[in-house]
Amino acid sequence: MKNAVVLLSGGLDSATVLALARSQGYVCHALSVDYGQRHHAELAAAQRVARELGALEHRVIHIDLTAFGGSALTDPDIAVPQQPGEGIPLTYVPARNTIMLSLALAWAEVLHAQDIFIGVNAVDYSGYPDCRPEFIAAYEQMANLATKAAVEGKRLTLHAPLLHLSKADIVKLGVQLGVDYGSTVSCYQADEEGRACGVCDSCRLRRAGFEAAGLADPTHYRCL
Amino acid sequence: MKNAVVLLSGGLDSATVLALARSQGYVCHALSVDYGQRHHAELAAAQRVARELGALEHRVIHIDLTAFGGSALTDPDIAVPQQPGEGIPLTYVPARNTIMLSLALAWAEVLHAQDIFIGVNAVDYSGYPDCRPEFIAAYEQMANLATKAAVEGKRLTLHAPLLHLSKADIVKLGVQLGVDYGSTVSCYQADEEGRACGVCDSCRLRRAGFEAAGLADPTHYRCL
Repeated sequence: MKNAVVLLSGGLDSATVLALARSQGYVCHALSVDYGQRHHAELAAAQRVARELGALEHRVIHIDLTAFGGSALTDPDIAVPQQPGEGIPLTYVPARNTIMLSLALAWAEVLHAQDIFIGVNAVDYSGYPDCRPEFIAAYEQMANLATKAAVEGKRLTLHAPLLHLSKADIVKLGVQLGVDYGSTVSCYQADEEGRACGVCDSCRLRRAGFEAAGLADPTHYRCL
Repeated sequence: MKNAVVLLSGGLDSATVLALARSQGYVCHALSVDYGQRHHAELAAAQRVARELGALEHRVIHIDLTAFGGSALTDPDIAVPQQPGEGIPLTYVPARNTIMLSLALAWAEVLHAQDIFIGVNAVDYSGYPDCRPEFIAAYEQMANLATKAAVEGKRLTLHAPLLHLSKADIVKLGVQLGVDYGSTVSCYQADEEGRACGVCDSCRLRRAGFEAAGLADPTHYRCL
């Protein structure tokens, strides 16, 4: 039985990754990061999903990225876009995946885990630079020089199993693995009950995924 | 005038780096991380040093690494060694530099800064894996794939100007640059007034540095 740290946002992708890691026999330690995002419904979803999908434990680390700002998710003065735009969107949080992976790396080392899972995706995604395969590869290389475990020859593997899947394929995989997507929250501006806006980038990609997969969308939308 | 983020612990090395970055004309944004270390005298020292050495601003980010533990600095049940030991010491904090650099990277991107300074040293050091040149090089490579700034072609440079200096050379450089080392705190177990124990690894390396440089040691030691 191998330990793994699974980054769990509470959204569709990371829930699928947790289910996949469990199906591969990993003992999963789920890690969520409260970085000052606009709402806490996502973290509540993470807690639900961790329990439903059989994580051994779930921890939330707090780190106040609103101190830096620079994103629609961490600066209340920058609005979440309601329409698709050009280039890297305003919801990009500077260095977010780098920071979250670094926390996962720290916990993995303490747990003697050599596996970290992250739900990044480079197909139906928002163009975030830290969701690209070359970033994941470079991070893994760096991580294998960063720790005492690495010096001792314990190689760390950074798993990004959704990297090359379409949103439709992710949804099909998750349903096969028993994920209840009604428990997950992907929306950038969900309300406190976790109901999705239906119009932000994240909602659009998610909805299109269910449609393309030919599956019913169990997302709780609110009336706008 | 170029902006730079300077990681500032409040110890001897990072104070020297801040003075050096200032002498090279950088506008310095000093960043300290309160990760739950054993004492806060170091953070008080960082504040003092940032002011004395002309940082434009100084921010402290809180992140509770005691949630993971795994180090004499983040787990109260692991004592700080009083004698030199073999291998990587118990004061090693899993992924600490990876985490701190990730926060520096986030802030740098928000500031449009393309330079980060860190005071790691691979000569008179404690054998930490994340102080080695190969780690710094791999981190820089990863960082240049991680951000929107990188995608836009703004190359980030990770400066580790002390990497190949002895502690004696660091001290000489700092004195030349006007650093008042009496303001800095390096000790792993300083008391609340910032007085050093004189026996931990960090104290031993620091004291030996002043001796080898032939300079008076301005460290405030407490009676043990």
